[in-house]
Amino acid sequence: MINRLAERIKQLEAPVVVGLDPMPDYIPGFIIDKAFKEYGGNIEGICEAIWVYIKGIIDAVYDLVPAVKPQVAMYEQFGPEGLVIYKRVIEYAKSKGLIVIGDVKRGDIGSTSEAYATGHLGRIAIRGKEFKGFDEDFITVNPYLGSDGILPFINVCKKEGKGIFVLVKTSNPSSGEFQDQLTCGRPLYELVGEKVAEWGMLHMGEGYSYVGAVVGATYPEVGRILRSIMPRTFILVPGYGAQGGKAKDLKPYFNKDGLGAIVNSSRGIIAAYKLKAYEGFGEKAYADASRQAVLDMREDLKQAWM
Amino acid sequence: MINRLAERIKQLEAPVVVGLDPMPDYIPGFIIDKAFKEYGGNIEGICEAIWVYIKGIIDAVYDLVPAVKPQVAMYEQFGPEGLVIYKRVIEYAKSKGLIVIGDVKRGDIGSTSEAYATGHLGRIAIRGKEFKGFDEDFITVNPYLGSDGILPFINVCKKEGKGIFVLVKTSNPSSGEFQDQLTCGRPLYELVGEKVAEWGMLHMGEGYSYVGAVVGATYPEVGRILRSIMPRTFILVPGYGAQGGKAKDLKPYFNKDGLGAIVNSSRGIIAAYKLKAYEGFGEKAYADASRQAVLDMREDLKQAWM
Repeated sequence: MINRLAERIKQLEAPVVVGLDPMPDYIPGFIIDKAFKEYGGNIEGICEAIWVYIKGIIDAVYDLVPAVKPQVAMYEQFGPEGLVIYKRVIEYAKSKGLIVIGDVKRGDIGSTSEAYATGHLGRIAIRGKEFKGFDEDFITVNPYLGSDGILPFINVCKKEGKGIFVLVKTSNPSSGEFQDQLTCGRPLYELVGEKVAEWGMLHMGEGYSYVGAVVGATYPEVGRILRSIMPRTFILVPGYGAQGGKAKDLKPYFNKDGLGAIVNSSRGIIAAYKLKAYEGFGEKAYADASRQAVLDMREDLKQAWM
Repeated sequence: MINRLAERIKQLEAPVVVGLDPMPDYIPGFIIDKAFKEYGGNIEGICEAIWVYIKGIIDAVYDLVPAVKPQVAMYEQFGPEGLVIYKRVIEYAKSKGLIVIGDVKRGDIGSTSEAYATGHLGRIAIRGKEFKGFDEDFITVNPYLGSDGILPFINVCKKEGKGIFVLVKTSNPSSGEFQDQLTCGRPLYELVGEKVAEWGMLHMGEGYSYVGAVVGATYPEVGRILRSIMPRTFILVPGYGAQGGKAKDLKPYFNKDGLGAIVNSSRGIIAAYKLKAYEGFGEKAYADASRQAVLDMREDLKQAWM
């Protein structure tokens, strides 16, 4: 799957992942109106609205980008019904040829990580029958519990030809509180980066490992250092656009082959119709606004990788 | 809710939380047989089996312990249908008077943590209507992203009178890989502990804060240090029993008032019927075995807090 990700990025000239994070106030009013009319002003109604909204985005961008990254929290906040939509989004995106990175940031002690790995990337066997949970292609994973919280994910990935992105340095303002703490004279995120490179050797693809890293766009100098610590690691880069990361700052995240990083934008694409630059599209054409925002982002990112 | 937790612990003389982690191979065969016969050998069947099994445990122990801790991964591995059961377990446990600690270990950047907080502890308002997701009383939270990943949880907790337990030092063998790294001469977990104490001041109950900590039973010396760094913090202690933690080692986790810690056991209680000590009960009386295991654990823990 990491080989396919690299290949699709090259084909489309787009190291871009669209974050499918349906905050309720991104959803166009006409979609909510229709869903509430059909299903009622209840959980079913809002979940239907999320589905229609996100399906519209996928239909508008699937031929432009290699991957989408649904943020599970935005679905999970509606309870089990929201997770039904999360799963439907995964299935639909895959049916359109997209690679799906589930942004779930799971991580726990060994036996529990194994259950998360099974549910998101693998299959569970009970009395000779196999069941699948959410079946993403990649998921994001939290490293705070160390190797024995990570290895169960890698084991499942090896069986399934799938991958993970481990949080190394996140894009949020207070990410430094723990991640930047100096340990033996260098920040914790470097130590985590080294472990990611080491875990990566356990499951290598053709040029890159199936074990990737998350490094926020908001800390380009850190990106440069981590790129050199983790040469065969694909970096998932959140924080571009709405969170403040700029394309020209992303050069250090890429290798000389023009690969090695994939940049996420969520709000800047799925809620593009709310931005000044795209307001001409209007709410009804929200998906066209998203398509244009992807085209613009693809152009913009050429500064970083070309 | 933290006041109620402390009060119930005193009433029952049981600083005990029962971990409801239904690993498939814990479920008695006769329950799976019946569920597969009724619902088919499929996801519905296995989810029904989990529900029947866990309901049996709750019915057997609800009058002995203040709280239960369902581990969401064990439900999530079955996809949305598993999370329907997770929610049903929460509702049922609450209907029996139990406090529910959702072991979800969530944590992300601010806006995403907000969605998790809303979905697990709060309510979401859409066009003047309020919806609830999972509605646990407490959840566990991962601190790797720092304050702005934690504060959204505390904000929701303040509104709802609920709480969180932040991972500080986990019970697994490789927890030290990052958590023990020396930062300014002391381990990272001490720094996290200090932040937990600081965050705790934002939402205080009568004697203890609504912001608790997770500190594994497998590192008693660490427990002693963290107890002194976080005097008003309730400590959720995993790793007793099956993972190797012993009652006599847990004394330092408690304050002199006999409070301040609540000890989890999962496998040792819910799969007690599989242990040598309780095998006389047999599979059919698995819930009676669990009840006896709780009674024994309560006795055993008196060494720690009395």
